[in-house]
Amino acid sequence: MKSTEGEAFVMSARLAEISELVADLPLSRVMLANDARFPWLMLIPRRANMHELFDLSAAEQGTLMREITAVSRMLKELTKADKINVEAIGNATPQLHVHVVARYKTDSQWPNGVQWGNPQPYTEEKRQSFLAELRAGLRKLGL
Amino acid sequence: MKSTEGEAFVMSARLAEISELVADLPLSRVMLANDARFPWLMLIPRRANMHELFDLSAAEQGTLMREITAVSRMLKELTKADKINVEAIGNATPQLHVHVVARYKTDSQWPNGVQWGNPQPYTEEKRQSFLAELRAGLRKLGL
Repeated sequence: MKSTEGEAFVMSARLAEISELVADLPLSRVMLANDARFPWLMLIPRRANMHELFDLSAAEQGTLMREITAVSRMLKELTKADKINVEAIGNATPQLHVHVVARYKTDSQWPNGVQWGNPQPYTEEKRQSFLAELRAGLRKLGL
Repeated sequence: MKSTEGEAFVMSARLAEISELVADLPLSRVMLANDARFPWLMLIPRRANMHELFDLSAAEQGTLMREITAVSRMLKELTKADKINVEAIGNATPQLHVHVVARYKTDSQWPNGVQWGNPQPYTEEKRQSFLAELRAGLRKLGL
């Protein structure tokens, strides 16, 4: 365990570049990936120097699982998705982040996992309205 | 929550076809995917009718997270991997299963997530020796 609560969390520049802040949960920062092909959130535990799930303390792992499942359920209800995909990869961007992606049987990469590859940015109007819906959904979770 | 402990768990035929039993943990059945390109485990909660992580009860979610992180740490130490990837996708095979994959900067799909696609089966000797190492590693976890 190398959880370092004393050290400041600094958001990865790469993750910040491809996404926008939705809200902070007790442990995780929730970001919306700027890719309109899939409703795609990322949960980033606000702890320094985290790379693997097991780098978090046991308590933080439990909190993260509660946040992942609550956000997944909210996202599925909001988007009427066929499936939620949850992925902690981090090969290219080592800061621990968990993708929570709403998938449809009709989407362009079904049934494979999504790849960043060729994102399709949201229009400003769509992005703002989706962010507002997501923030309202997260507030209702009461985490 | 639709956890149905009274109903019998039946392993997906598709998952059984591509993998072999390593051992049962308190919640999850651990399977080794028959693909020598990557040391690739799957954790399958032994509960009926589970599709999404949030279909599990809160207690089961906590147990699953402990099993994922303990198995991930063991697999990383055993394989000297550069990164562990943890993925709950399940678009093609709906039974809830969590991939825990040891990745190397030199592997054929780095830095992307792995796809089943074109697996490379283990030799019988290699498969048996790896299964033995994995079973010993899991026993040491004391879960």
